[in-house]
Amino acid sequence: MKTEAKMTFIRAEKMKSVFTDILVKSGFTDIKAEKLADIFTTNSLEGIYTHGVNRFPRFIRNTRDGYIIPDAEPSLTHVAGSLEQWNGNLGPGPLNAAFATDRVMDLADNNGIGLLALANTNHWMRGGLYGWQAARKGYVFIGWTNTIANMPAWGAKDPRLGNNPFVLAVPCGSDAIVLDFAMSLYSYGKMEAYANEGKKLPYQGGFDNEGILTDDPGKILDSWRTLPIGYWKGASLSLLLDILAVILSGGSSVNEITARKVEYALSQVYIAIKINKLKNAPSIQNAVQAIIDDLHASLPVDDKTTIRYPGENVLKIKERSLKNGIPVAKNIWEEILAL
Amino acid sequence: MKTEAKMTFIRAEKMKSVFTDILVKSGFTDIKAEKLADIFTTNSLEGIYTHGVNRFPRFIRNTRDGYIIPDAEPSLTHVAGSLEQWNGNLGPGPLNAAFATDRVMDLADNNGIGLLALANTNHWMRGGLYGWQAARKGYVFIGWTNTIANMPAWGAKDPRLGNNPFVLAVPCGSDAIVLDFAMSLYSYGKMEAYANEGKKLPYQGGFDNEGILTDDPGKILDSWRTLPIGYWKGASLSLLLDILAVILSGGSSVNEITARKVEYALSQVYIAIKINKLKNAPSIQNAVQAIIDDLHASLPVDDKTTIRYPGENVLKIKERSLKNGIPVAKNIWEEILAL
Repeated sequence: MKTEAKMTFIRAEKMKSVFTDILVKSGFTDIKAEKLADIFTTNSLEGIYTHGVNRFPRFIRNTRDGYIIPDAEPSLTHVAGSLEQWNGNLGPGPLNAAFATDRVMDLADNNGIGLLALANTNHWMRGGLYGWQAARKGYVFIGWTNTIANMPAWGAKDPRLGNNPFVLAVPCGSDAIVLDFAMSLYSYGKMEAYANEGKKLPYQGGFDNEGILTDDPGKILDSWRTLPIGYWKGASLSLLLDILAVILSGGSSVNEITARKVEYALSQVYIAIKINKLKNAPSIQNAVQAIIDDLHASLPVDDKTTIRYPGENVLKIKERSLKNGIPVAKNIWEEILAL
Repeated sequence: MKTEAKMTFIRAEKMKSVFTDILVKSGFTDIKAEKLADIFTTNSLEGIYTHGVNRFPRFIRNTRDGYIIPDAEPSLTHVAGSLEQWNGNLGPGPLNAAFATDRVMDLADNNGIGLLALANTNHWMRGGLYGWQAARKGYVFIGWTNTIANMPAWGAKDPRLGNNPFVLAVPCGSDAIVLDFAMSLYSYGKMEAYANEGKKLPYQGGFDNEGILTDDPGKILDSWRTLPIGYWKGASLSLLLDILAVILSGGSSVNEITARKVEYALSQVYIAIKINKLKNAPSIQNAVQAIIDDLHASLPVDDKTTIRYPGENVLKIKERSLKNGIPVAKNIWEEILAL
């Protein structure tokens, strides 16, 4: 199956302007529409299509269905020292997340470290974006979200765990090192893409209906038994991230979200640490660079392989997309134009 | 090969008393020797033999070789609001870790959340122990340590990443839910145990020297290419945990530890959150229980499988060991008696 014939390339300004118009039509103010359009476009420019352009139609549908409230703003629920609890009031997830990230940086300015827990918010799309937002300003960022159930517990057949993406980010020179990963090895979107192209997964990604590990994405899409990273370890990490998000925010658990059938009203945690407050602040840049230099000195398994830190490729992808346009499946772009 | 013939069962009081005597002989004060003996015995009682009785001889050798300084105490380096930086002064890792855990709970008492970064400390043995210590007193605990390099970066052949154990713990009733996991799927100790019994690993645990994934522990012990949890994801998480530990503590990186050949002078991070400070404190216990109830309601893959939360089995193992004694390989117990 030829993929390229099904793709089109959209310039970033064009994409942002199309998104903005649709968002305004969907009830967002001009300012919020522009901010959201910028986030969806940036995620696409930086190669995270699953949480950029490809996800935009669902975001609009969720808004029109009333799960996302366009004019809702987060409100402060409780303060405990360096820790704040906020209610997302079902506002747009990316705007709530960008707000929470700014706010937790303020807490870190005052206290070295800050924690903000956000109940009742919506999907933040690409968690890494908030890692970049904080790390580029000189903060360590740790954050995570819960999700609807999409992965069985270890030893179980039915999905009761979320894939609960987790983000760690640190400043690196004028840029950042950003890790953004879900607790399942492959997302359903990734497995669908492999299945559509008739390809096997690079590694076993789940169990089939007979409980056998398989690299056949179709069998996993059928069983819903996706594999947690590190088997029992990732399943446990998913569970703990959910428990922590619920304890800290007072919001909904994976189980409660799942009972509502539609993924909304999520619980999230944001932690920021201001590295300029540390005694060793003057030497941090060199220390990070030395670790990266050592990583890059690794012996690759073959001469086609390059050893990279997480986020290292983002600027290159962005440059390419700025030059050539953002690759989008034609049917998705048509779906967007019809929104 | 019959394993049982090679095992002996040692009562906890006996083990602790043997450990205490050897520790005093190795230069620890009576008080410190007793605390350390208690930690090594508790880890063994709770089934973590690899970081209890089995590791005790190496701890003593490292002390006698001067890598662990018996009378060293941690000292405060820097305060930044809710965040403190400490120097472990190469003291015994478990005592430094227990101290850091107590201290970070004090920070959380004052500020809701506290972070303590500890440079220049030693192996904490079983990180989960500090999770139990904090969670049983009503704190969320997040902590991690770096290690000597023992795992290749993703796409690489030579070990430059640590397995950097990570701990998450939350209170649960009068007890706790504690997750303690390394970034490699199997530890070298676990792979050696399988190899000694002539068994395959339950899942592929690394690459052989030809770069093929294998469940043969001997081939991985030979290649040193152990598998990160979630492949590229665990490799990245290991890298970020090292960078964070180094930034926050100002201490040594995996690379610097590895250059010294012996694993000492590690960097660690401790975070505590006091849950009684949260607005939703009165309902937290029920919220955690509801998540656990949902987990336990999972459909197991077969009728031999029980779905458990991390740490759920610890009390049972402890009861059994209190009743029957702690199982120890005879050759290890003889090695200890000769120390």
